[in-house]
Amino acid sequence: MGEAILKRERVRDHLLELIETHPAGAPIPAERVLCQQLSVSRPTVRSAVEELVNTGLLIRQHGRGTFVARPKIAQEMVSGPMSLPQASGTWESRVLEHARIPAGARVGRRLHLSPAAEIHYIARLRLVDGEPMAIEYLHVPTEVAPALTLHDMESGDFYERLREHGVKVSEAVQSIEPTVTNESEAALLAVPVFAPALLFERLTTDAEGRQVEYVHSIYRGDRYKIVSRLTF
Amino acid sequence: MGEAILKRERVRDHLLELIETHPAGAPIPAERVLCQQLSVSRPTVRSAVEELVNTGLLIRQHGRGTFVARPKIAQEMVSGPMSLPQASGTWESRVLEHARIPAGARVGRRLHLSPAAEIHYIARLRLVDGEPMAIEYLHVPTEVAPALTLHDMESGDFYERLREHGVKVSEAVQSIEPTVTNESEAALLAVPVFAPALLFERLTTDAEGRQVEYVHSIYRGDRYKIVSRLTF
Repeated sequence: MGEAILKRERVRDHLLELIETHPAGAPIPAERVLCQQLSVSRPTVRSAVEELVNTGLLIRQHGRGTFVARPKIAQEMVSGPMSLPQASGTWESRVLEHARIPAGARVGRRLHLSPAAEIHYIARLRLVDGEPMAIEYLHVPTEVAPALTLHDMESGDFYERLREHGVKVSEAVQSIEPTVTNESEAALLAVPVFAPALLFERLTTDAEGRQVEYVHSIYRGDRYKIVSRLTF
Repeated sequence: MGEAILKRERVRDHLLELIETHPAGAPIPAERVLCQQLSVSRPTVRSAVEELVNTGLLIRQHGRGTFVARPKIAQEMVSGPMSLPQASGTWESRVLEHARIPAGARVGRRLHLSPAAEIHYIARLRLVDGEPMAIEYLHVPTEVAPALTLHDMESGDFYERLREHGVKVSEAVQSIEPTVTNESEAALLAVPVFAPALLFERLTTDAEGRQVEYVHSIYRGDRYKIVSRLTF
């Protein structure tokens, strides 16, 4: 590793130590102070600070300084018998788009539908304590729940709504991948373009093995993490 | 949303359709062909292709073209009684660094140790079918397993080795966050800087409630995803 990298890792460790031992909202020293304290150049400090701003551990407020960020919203991941995973904070949904549309090739393939088959489609913004946290895109075959309303699709516990429509939700397979925000996602989530984010995909089947829901969603990486407890 | 964004999403959907309906290694049409087929400009095509290269769905080979990538390595995430989660492919470890060192403030805090207390430290590269997949940093208090050898720390099933040293591994709390690679991580994982990646942190306790292991690791986002099966 080059010396420049080692220097930046030293600055990073120093900043992580500050972050972990100070409360949310505490200011960190100005760049020029950090340069002096650690005997490194301004670009080295700036690059280390930027990495931590980018991953959500520090918050930069223009003209005011840089501050320790609040802890991330922690979502507990459980498998086995479950309702929806629990997460901290108060969650709500705001509908961005909704329509009954043909499934199209990609969504149709996942839901085992013809591309021409009609689906309920909704794009919704998920907020935690009023702050944008995720964008979810839900797709439900119309024939699975013909009378599904917009109000149902706005609901936080959407599985509960599906059950009320007679759907016997049985199993879901979910994948999680890291990604970065594109322009439209960044605008909706109020984060920079290319900010770290999590891409979820979930396909839900009912007791008869029918595909009843396909969801993909983007979660802010600077404010969200997954926590799981493993026992041996 | 601006028209430019809508156009790029149309190109993206077209490319995703190609990716999902073609085998790994299949070439995608050249940029100029895509421009003609979709009636969009070269920068629009290039930006959509770059997003998919960046997230690992396409592979660009200079002078040869752009190809559908292989499926990601899927790691199954389970909670409840478990051994290590299962993942596809043949995994091996290559040691990058190892030492007995003082815990320091940050690692000491996690392991409930004084910063001066000695730990086993190891950095290792995890490979799947010979390809770099993750960098893991393991920290074990020396007093927990004084006779732990380098060979033990190279082992894939490290929990099994800890058991052989009399440690009753009981529970682990693991967090998963999205991040992007920095320069040194990118070099070790053979990916570009700022590529999407997953940051894992895991703290393991034994039957007596002692902190016996702290691990943090970086997994390539272009080749790795987490899959979980939820039942209701």
